[in-house]
Amino acid sequence: MIIIGERINGMFKAVSRAIKEKDKKVIQDLALKQIEAGAQFLDVNVGPAAANSMEAIEWLVKTIQEAGNFHLSLDSTKPEVIEAGLKLCKAKPMINSTTAQKEKLDILLPLAKKYNASLIGLTMNEKGVPSTVSGRTEMALQILAHTMEYEIPISDLYIDPLILPVNVAQDQASNVLEAIRECKLLSDPPPHLLLGLSNVSQKTLYRELINRTYVVMAITMGLDSAILDPFDKDLMDAVITAELLLNKDIYCDSYLDAYRRKEKAVGVKG
Amino acid sequence: MIIIGERINGMFKAVSRAIKEKDKKVIQDLALKQIEAGAQFLDVNVGPAAANSMEAIEWLVKTIQEAGNFHLSLDSTKPEVIEAGLKLCKAKPMINSTTAQKEKLDILLPLAKKYNASLIGLTMNEKGVPSTVSGRTEMALQILAHTMEYEIPISDLYIDPLILPVNVAQDQASNVLEAIRECKLLSDPPPHLLLGLSNVSQKTLYRELINRTYVVMAITMGLDSAILDPFDKDLMDAVITAELLLNKDIYCDSYLDAYRRKEKAVGVKG
Repeated sequence: MIIIGERINGMFKAVSRAIKEKDKKVIQDLALKQIEAGAQFLDVNVGPAAANSMEAIEWLVKTIQEAGNFHLSLDSTKPEVIEAGLKLCKAKPMINSTTAQKEKLDILLPLAKKYNASLIGLTMNEKGVPSTVSGRTEMALQILAHTMEYEIPISDLYIDPLILPVNVAQDQASNVLEAIRECKLLSDPPPHLLLGLSNVSQKTLYRELINRTYVVMAITMGLDSAILDPFDKDLMDAVITAELLLNKDIYCDSYLDAYRRKEKAVGVKG
Repeated sequence: MIIIGERINGMFKAVSRAIKEKDKKVIQDLALKQIEAGAQFLDVNVGPAAANSMEAIEWLVKTIQEAGNFHLSLDSTKPEVIEAGLKLCKAKPMINSTTAQKEKLDILLPLAKKYNASLIGLTMNEKGVPSTVSGRTEMALQILAHTMEYEIPISDLYIDPLILPVNVAQDQASNVLEAIRECKLLSDPPPHLLLGLSNVSQKTLYRELINRTYVVMAITMGLDSAILDPFDKDLMDAVITAELLLNKDIYCDSYLDAYRRKEKAVGVKG
């Protein structure tokens, strides 16, 4: 499972404040602790409040890389902000994200190629998020076809079938599960399948329970990457155990510790 | 989700002792508390130590029914022990279990018909448990065909694809998941799909974590019933949440409490 730590995001107050006050320690602690907790990538999002997004992402990328050359996922709706970050990345980065809109793909795929970056493709276009399984799969296929046209390896593509909050679009949770299974059949090798997990539980009462239950369901259907909170230990235990039960790691009594040791070694290598 | 409480089993010391000493309170407490915790059926297994299994199951069934007319799952490898229990059941019972062997089916299916009982069918025969998905599905089909021959409604059939301990047969956990999905396609309406959940975690260090992770995976693939420990609150929370995310219950902030109130009302009606 490829874990992308979600905590360096300007939506969180402490991060927003750290960006404003150029407080490196807050950001570097979040980076190191997320890697320690099992993240292989760190999502970097300047948030809505940053006065100058380009300057903010440059400062974040530089600050994080002073703590280690970690894989970063550059998270912005603005391609110029993403590129400002890409220019500075020392380890293979990820672009978060494109949609299936041709004009978006024609900007972000060349960026992915130029900077040898992985790319998250959201199954939506200018009309929004399709409500059906086949609608999502069709968008994934459009992104996949463009990725191949640009001669970007499929192993660099992360399809995100866009989970919506269960309290507002309850029927979509099972559609996303089926879409994950179908998208895994679109090519051989298949693209990665990714979710921005915490979306499923937005404004619900039992967020952590819903997050960890849904990620296990999605892993069962073929999810192999997620943007999530690696500090949620029960969530990480559920992820590790689901992968064990799919025979992706070898069982030993101390499989939780063994997984963490292994992933930490990978993460720190960066 | 149809929950069959596993706690009235002579393998547990307290139950074994209660059977020997005819201690009704221990058994009736286990019955009432399992129903309270969300079980719709109570598994009844006299265990290996009972001197006289027929007498023991008769005493158990009578003792439980003094506390309420609950649905009982009569759990024995001996058809005569099962029939001794069936004769006394006041609410629709379940037979636990037959295999796909013709001689077993030809004894247990007539019993199911005579007593209007549901029936658990294990996907194994005299050669053992098949290791492949298709092997398990084929056994399920044999059981299904015999069930139809005996004119027993498919809604009374619970196929159990037999999960093995992850520490001894790790590759089987994912095969069972796929078998669940395939068995759901064998007929329309499909049979119920059931697991004896705690088997997956036998002699592992993190039993509860493995149980609750695996049940969520199995529910994702179509599991709709399980023999499990309803006293494990985290496990029950995971079951309820997985069903919510499959849109089987309507979301409300207090969905855990709402589910428990509803199921308790059904269980107590018995």
